[in-house]
Amino acid sequence: MDYSSLWLNWQPINEPPAFMSGICARVHSASGKAALRELQEGFAAMTGRRPADTAAGACLCITETDAEDESYAFIREGETLRLEGGARGLVFGAFDLLRGLALGKREFDGASAPRYSVRMLDHWDNMDGSIERGYAGRSFFFEDDRILNGPRIRDYARLLASCGLNGCCINNVNVKAEAVRLLTPDHWPALAELAKTLAEYGIKLWLSVSFAAPMELGGLDTADPLDEAVCRWWEETTAALYKAVPNLGGFLVKADSEGRPGPFTYGRTQAEGANMLARALAKQGGKLLWRCFVYNCTQDWRDTKTDRARAQCDHFAPLDGQFDDNVLLQIKNGPVDFQVREPVSPLLGRLEHTNSIIEFQITQEYTGQQKHLCYLIPMFKDILDFRLCHRAENDSVAETVSAVCAVSNMGRDYNWTGHDLAGANLYGFGRLSWDPALSAEEIAREFIRLALGDDERIIAEVLPMLMRSREVYEQYTAPLGIGWMVNPGHHYGPNPDGYEYDRWGTYHRATNTAIGVERGPNGTGYTEQYRKPLSDMYADVASCPEELLLFFHRVNYDYVMRDGRTLIQRIYDDHFAGYEAAEEFAQSWDRLEGLLPEDLFSRVQERFAEQLRSAREWRDIINSWFYRRSGIPDIHGRELY
Amino acid sequence: MDYSSLWLNWQPINEPPAFMSGICARVHSASGKAALRELQEGFAAMTGRRPADTAAGACLCITETDAEDESYAFIREGETLRLEGGARGLVFGAFDLLRGLALGKREFDGASAPRYSVRMLDHWDNMDGSIERGYAGRSFFFEDDRILNGPRIRDYARLLASCGLNGCCINNVNVKAEAVRLLTPDHWPALAELAKTLAEYGIKLWLSVSFAAPMELGGLDTADPLDEAVCRWWEETTAALYKAVPNLGGFLVKADSEGRPGPFTYGRTQAEGANMLARALAKQGGKLLWRCFVYNCTQDWRDTKTDRARAQCDHFAPLDGQFDDNVLLQIKNGPVDFQVREPVSPLLGRLEHTNSIIEFQITQEYTGQQKHLCYLIPMFKDILDFRLCHRAENDSVAETVSAVCAVSNMGRDYNWTGHDLAGANLYGFGRLSWDPALSAEEIAREFIRLALGDDERIIAEVLPMLMRSREVYEQYTAPLGIGWMVNPGHHYGPNPDGYEYDRWGTYHRATNTAIGVERGPNGTGYTEQYRKPLSDMYADVASCPEELLLFFHRVNYDYVMRDGRTLIQRIYDDHFAGYEAAEEFAQSWDRLEGLLPEDLFSRVQERFAEQLRSAREWRDIINSWFYRRSGIPDIHGRELY
Repeated sequence: MDYSSLWLNWQPINEPPAFMSGICARVHSASGKAALRELQEGFAAMTGRRPADTAAGACLCITETDAEDESYAFIREGETLRLEGGARGLVFGAFDLLRGLALGKREFDGASAPRYSVRMLDHWDNMDGSIERGYAGRSFFFEDDRILNGPRIRDYARLLASCGLNGCCINNVNVKAEAVRLLTPDHWPALAELAKTLAEYGIKLWLSVSFAAPMELGGLDTADPLDEAVCRWWEETTAALYKAVPNLGGFLVKADSEGRPGPFTYGRTQAEGANMLARALAKQGGKLLWRCFVYNCTQDWRDTKTDRARAQCDHFAPLDGQFDDNVLLQIKNGPVDFQVREPVSPLLGRLEHTNSIIEFQITQEYTGQQKHLCYLIPMFKDILDFRLCHRAENDSVAETVSAVCAVSNMGRDYNWTGHDLAGANLYGFGRLSWDPALSAEEIAREFIRLALGDDERIIAEVLPMLMRSREVYEQYTAPLGIGWMVNPGHHYGPNPDGYEYDRWGTYHRATNTAIGVERGPNGTGYTEQYRKPLSDMYADVASCPEELLLFFHRVNYDYVMRDGRTLIQRIYDDHFAGYEAAEEFAQSWDRLEGLLPEDLFSRVQERFAEQLRSAREWRDIINSWFYRRSGIPDIHGRELY
Repeated sequence: MDYSSLWLNWQPINEPPAFMSGICARVHSASGKAALRELQEGFAAMTGRRPADTAAGACLCITETDAEDESYAFIREGETLRLEGGARGLVFGAFDLLRGLALGKREFDGASAPRYSVRMLDHWDNMDGSIERGYAGRSFFFEDDRILNGPRIRDYARLLASCGLNGCCINNVNVKAEAVRLLTPDHWPALAELAKTLAEYGIKLWLSVSFAAPMELGGLDTADPLDEAVCRWWEETTAALYKAVPNLGGFLVKADSEGRPGPFTYGRTQAEGANMLARALAKQGGKLLWRCFVYNCTQDWRDTKTDRARAQCDHFAPLDGQFDDNVLLQIKNGPVDFQVREPVSPLLGRLEHTNSIIEFQITQEYTGQQKHLCYLIPMFKDILDFRLCHRAENDSVAETVSAVCAVSNMGRDYNWTGHDLAGANLYGFGRLSWDPALSAEEIAREFIRLALGDDERIIAEVLPMLMRSREVYEQYTAPLGIGWMVNPGHHYGPNPDGYEYDRWGTYHRATNTAIGVERGPNGTGYTEQYRKPLSDMYADVASCPEELLLFFHRVNYDYVMRDGRTLIQRIYDDHFAGYEAAEEFAQSWDRLEGLLPEDLFSRVQERFAEQLRSAREWRDIINSWFYRRSGIPDIHGRELY
């Protein structure tokens, strides 16, 4: 096999419970049978022998019900364990059981259901096989403008289902070239085959589509959402597509965003644009995911009035309540673009009557591109737990959004995710999507034990580094929420002025005395987009969380932080500390030699070497840049260049 | 014809002299016949009728002698004008006569010979048809790994000869991919045909070769210049090549430079490497052009000891006298890399017993990429006139070097050079190569009259803008010799820190109070590479020419210049003034509407629009960057961002 099994690498377990000796199956659907097969093979791997086909006694009894949801239940009956659920529920239940067994759990009881009904991965794969912001090799969905299928897709579906996910949008939201033609019958037989492979494991297929498809494919001279011919084209195309390709979740659309076509071209609102598509999908039971990443990407850097952080709320908050029920507004976790530190998007707290899906990014575009270790789950947890204050209770992000998705970090690499430890982000996102109450540490521990080996020495090294890794990455890169400072285009490595005089609205406006954009009421007013008391907290530099200080405020380098250090000293200290921590990670990993498979050990060792090289550049360039600009030396006399 | 004739666009002249009515030709070689044909066609175009074939009376009498040099002579005999010269001399004489006639000259007398025997263009063309640093379309020499030929190549040869050039190296000094195989017989028939086309107009063909060719092509496991098999391989290959391809000038080699292979790999000196190749060439009458662009291109930006400007002198000055006679050390005009303002390379004054060829760059890599107007001839003149002080007299660069070359600005565009006015750089370089005593203004005037139209209104607009254009470009880009501040990679547009934290040795080291690398005796010592009194002049900030202040010295922003302005105020003023001048150029050009062919007028108008857009970015980004860094406002209160 030219790829790893990640966390589906079942190993022999100690003292297997009695029910593992046999399986009594009453399953009929393809998914039910897939669940059975997983259990048969998993039990065999864990116990060393294939479970008997049996009808009673000490066994696992699987019963497929007619339920259409994804829930399942374990019921103990003496030495028999019963697993009940609908076709899809059995798949998730089977993997839950196998995971539990592998992790030492011996008692199974009670029901489980996912927190969200849409839990998906967004792939930014192009049909030529390349992946936008992909750091794990080429696409396993596409090559040479064709759709791929086969064992790897099946194992992909197993991986998704086994961590709790139930959907994938396979093509880049920037729908270009051949991908536009996924809406033509030429590709539907292959899409149908792919959808079938995925459906066996309860995974729905979604497609990114171009808002201009009626012109690009339909020969129309407009894509105006209020044009009758446009509506008809979408309705007919969607109906034909659903007929040819069952198990479609719906469409994902990036409209009026970074050059993509959208309703603005025709003077229509985002709601008018979305609802037109949503109506076509509703007739097929489909949903529409409509991205809110709408902002001016041709800003003049001299313009200090426009604040990109405001854009999504400015565009979408006034439209609350105007979207059809099967529309989910897809909102990035922060207001800008997947930086290592951003506040939670205020738009999440402004939609009372609109469904939303939060978008995370597990492909590490701005967080080290799977060359640096950056376990993102603690960040995702912080975000999901964040209280938006738009209602008195149950106001966390997790309780507010209707669904979750993440931009995939997967590709055709042997280990699927480039960095072997980046698998933890995929696994963790899936686990949270099912149950956002899980802790980041719990998830990390599961991943390590399942994917690396159930050995306390491994856990002792890897768990702390995973848990610290995001903070460490943040320490040696752009400080305190200022973001960016990366090389334009590919976004890897430090470049403090990389986007400063460009059109993307991402400015730090640093002078010899101060840095940052003032986003309080006396600045761009961005803080006012939050509900009280958040807006007040962020507006006041004294109450603003310090890790976000430079996101919200323009601050002098000699500003005194709460611990008495100046801002610039804090920046210097963080960068020295971050690099040292990266060195510790690399040393920690080296101690695992011999405890891990040699190929895995050396793959990760190479990544740490690159992380160290790059972290040193980050440390020295960021520190030197601040030093040269401010003229303020490090109080500890460390070398600045 | 899908390309213009540039300055070979002969128009009817007033009062043609009597000798133009007939031509009496005694020519026998292909070049002699080419000269005759040029004169017949030129006379016909200028007088409206074809000159008679005649034997006496009022006519031009052309006599081909056995002379092998390039000189020619005009002799007046009543109404007969005699032109005498060897085969090549007649070509240059014919174009001299035609140019003179077109420019209103009516009396021709005396002999002419070129200042240098090697006067060439270096093309950085790749065999796939792309051109490194090319801004005028694709290569007309290569496509799809094949060598092209035909009418365009013939007209290319005419253009070169008509302005005084006599050689071209057709392939990129970075010899890669198929170009390595130009040394294999596969390409020799096509090379021979090409060489023949060129030879008709007195142009010699040169080839860039890879120092590692014995390994890449010869199957040897070394390219060590002291290895006998390596010497034999070069000797045999060169002999066979010369046999198959006559009219070869020799080889151009970029060795031990920016990743290219070279003698350093084997612990050999540059002289040992060059002489080995030179010996192989000497047997065939060929020359070796050996580039001196040797420096550390993987410098750590933190390292303040290494000074790239020193590298060429450090490497080559100690080797003076060790190179064979047929080696010409090819030295860029400045010590770094074709910036808009650099001092003259000190290496030029350090070679007493070594032949050298100075390398200019007329492809506008760092001078606006043929989108901005930048007439380079005034700069080349300054360089050629520069006194190196290595001897009491005749110590100018022009009197010191043995030959001249320039990196070509030509490509397959209709106008050959992207910007129609960039043709002046090609024409001017050719004219200077024959006679470095010509003035930049004289050359500009010739170009305008020949290529744009002999109309005082055109000259009145275009001549001043050509003459000011380099200073203007300098004003709105990187200030006072600091160089760089461009976007990495493509080198177009402003980026003050673009190369600051990179590996290329091009640092400004700007802080909140000062900018520049100190290159005096208390700094890197670079100034000591010049002869006295130059070294003293440059070493002292008080005597250093101000336009080079930031090349030689680290200076505080509040340093007071000779006119009483501070350094930073001078920078602000220059940038505002440069942009305004660019605006004036565009307005000036607009006044020519109707006086020029419509297509030419609008091509240049579009270039000026882009120049203005880009100059505004340069002005504002450079000024803002200095303002933010220094905190010092413009004393005139103009807007800084």
